[in-house]
Amino acid sequence: MTASDRDWLQEPIPPLDTDSITAAQARQRELTKPPGSLGRLEELGVVLAAMQRTQRPSVERVTILIFAADHGVATEGISAFPQAVTAQMVHNFAHGGAAISVLARLWQAHLQVINVGTLEPLEPLPNVLDRRIGPGTANFLQQPALQPDQLTRALVIGREAVDNATEAGTQLLIGGEMGIGNSTAAAALGCALLNDSARTLAGPGTGLDKAGVEHKINVIEAALALHSTRQPLEALQRLGGFEIVALVGAYLRSGQRGIPVLVDGFIATAAALAAVRLRPELAAWLLYSHRSSEPGHQRLLQALQAQPLLDLQLRLGEGSGAAVALPLLRAAAALHSEMATFAEAQVSAQ
Amino acid sequence: MTASDRDWLQEPIPPLDTDSITAAQARQRELTKPPGSLGRLEELGVVLAAMQRTQRPSVERVTILIFAADHGVATEGISAFPQAVTAQMVHNFAHGGAAISVLARLWQAHLQVINVGTLEPLEPLPNVLDRRIGPGTANFLQQPALQPDQLTRALVIGREAVDNATEAGTQLLIGGEMGIGNSTAAAALGCALLNDSARTLAGPGTGLDKAGVEHKINVIEAALALHSTRQPLEALQRLGGFEIVALVGAYLRSGQRGIPVLVDGFIATAAALAAVRLRPELAAWLLYSHRSSEPGHQRLLQALQAQPLLDLQLRLGEGSGAAVALPLLRAAAALHSEMATFAEAQVSAQ
Repeated sequence: MTASDRDWLQEPIPPLDTDSITAAQARQRELTKPPGSLGRLEELGVVLAAMQRTQRPSVERVTILIFAADHGVATEGISAFPQAVTAQMVHNFAHGGAAISVLARLWQAHLQVINVGTLEPLEPLPNVLDRRIGPGTANFLQQPALQPDQLTRALVIGREAVDNATEAGTQLLIGGEMGIGNSTAAAALGCALLNDSARTLAGPGTGLDKAGVEHKINVIEAALALHSTRQPLEALQRLGGFEIVALVGAYLRSGQRGIPVLVDGFIATAAALAAVRLRPELAAWLLYSHRSSEPGHQRLLQALQAQPLLDLQLRLGEGSGAAVALPLLRAAAALHSEMATFAEAQVSAQ
Repeated sequence: MTASDRDWLQEPIPPLDTDSITAAQARQRELTKPPGSLGRLEELGVVLAAMQRTQRPSVERVTILIFAADHGVATEGISAFPQAVTAQMVHNFAHGGAAISVLARLWQAHLQVINVGTLEPLEPLPNVLDRRIGPGTANFLQQPALQPDQLTRALVIGREAVDNATEAGTQLLIGGEMGIGNSTAAAALGCALLNDSARTLAGPGTGLDKAGVEHKINVIEAALALHSTRQPLEALQRLGGFEIVALVGAYLRSGQRGIPVLVDGFIATAAALAAVRLRPELAAWLLYSHRSSEPGHQRLLQALQAQPLLDLQLRLGEGSGAAVALPLLRAAAALHSEMATFAEAQVSAQ
């Protein structure tokens, strides 16, 4: 891999089609309901119509990409769970037992797991693609988490996954992640990009107690002292993780291909923030599914001016919060597409 | 109909099964996720498991009952839409063009429309049951909205609809309503039950402007001066509507039959409040779907200590907000039922 392997990052990201927006807003006013009475579902219907350049939007065909990887910083004891859980959960995804597996089945979404760097290699597993970059990242208390060529590779893995999904006809992308330690990496990344203190973005993750969170804050502060940068790619290389970087590549490619993204929780939103800092035009293609109970999520959402759809105290990751919100998009699309107009139904307008 | 036709209102409403709750909570702790990380979906999974006395809850079979009726108070000019819209929307439900029609199709829920009192009789329509009690209610600025025997009949219509749904195997009830003027009736009812001022509960409904809301407040204050009572059945008779009372009957019967209810917005919640004031044990069977943008809804939710699932600025009625929230219950049930345990998936616990 060479530096030119990152040239694709600058490919154009289209804006939403303004004619489609205008037409969709007009259609919403004609549907048999008091104007505005479907609230955020009306906005979503309009946005989906504009993204798909149609007055009959659909989000039936959905791809959920889960990128899994380990983190060198896990050796600092910043997670409530042992590092072995990353690989164990990849097995659980493969065999259909994880939350995201259940939700993907329930909503008939296509679930694709991509191993971008578990600590140990894994045997071939159903629905798991082996794209392992290395045995987890390096510990960013000692050196940058990724080597420059690893950064390039992780971005390309995300890009290729979205290209494959797009060619298979996907209408919506959900990105998920699995990686013990990745709320520490995501918090550190967010701190670098936003010039925030570790205390603002570090939280319990999978379940740290108060002392655990204090330790996590100290670890992140030490990392920030070593790796101060607000440049997105450099911050990703120094403080990210393989799965976080792959998410960045996937989000950017989705925008380039004109595929809407439903962003999950804290870690996914940190990746979205890095991607938007790199390419601000991407923001038009990102929809936000939920406000996590991980306290730093609110700060990331605020930085992105994001108004998430749900607030159900979810904090699982795996793309699960986005999968929970998916039916809201389907409802919005169906209402926009299928409701009768006042004229069609011979209902008196206001 | 005689007074004894209301005896059924006092039939027992079972409490949730405490053994099922304990077992469901234990199961949630064993599922392959950080404990608590699915937030409110975990609570919902536990409650659904307890309601259905099973560790594999399901809400696949859903019945949506829409009760439609006109309101005498509509002649006071308290709605943004003409009264003819009630019957027009019943036609729209029948022909599949309304928001609730689209959502019922999308989620494969059974939609049953029941005409309990449009101003004019309607010709036979597909999926519309004719149970018309009268040509709308009386104008409660002049006399009680319902006669005592009309109250009894509306309650029984709700009961019978739930009995039919239960015998057809329904696992969840959604109650919806259509009736131009019914946010005025619901606000008046809420004021009577809560001893609140009209200003607390009156809002724009389908789209009144500021002057319209002021007029609505005056109308409700005048009605309250005439019909002061905190007794639920008397308040329903004096200030309710056929569809609101039928919802009360339906909710009470659902509790008696052990069928969970997903409550919709402002008008449905006013009916729920009356039902819970009549039979406090019903509260265990009511789940709240969303916080409406109708301002008084928050007060009703607060009086019921209800924590709704969604806050999407919906204010359409028809049961539509509950239908939008339905997939959250399905997700909660599927996650509770189908996720692997730590032991099954050989994942290390915390």
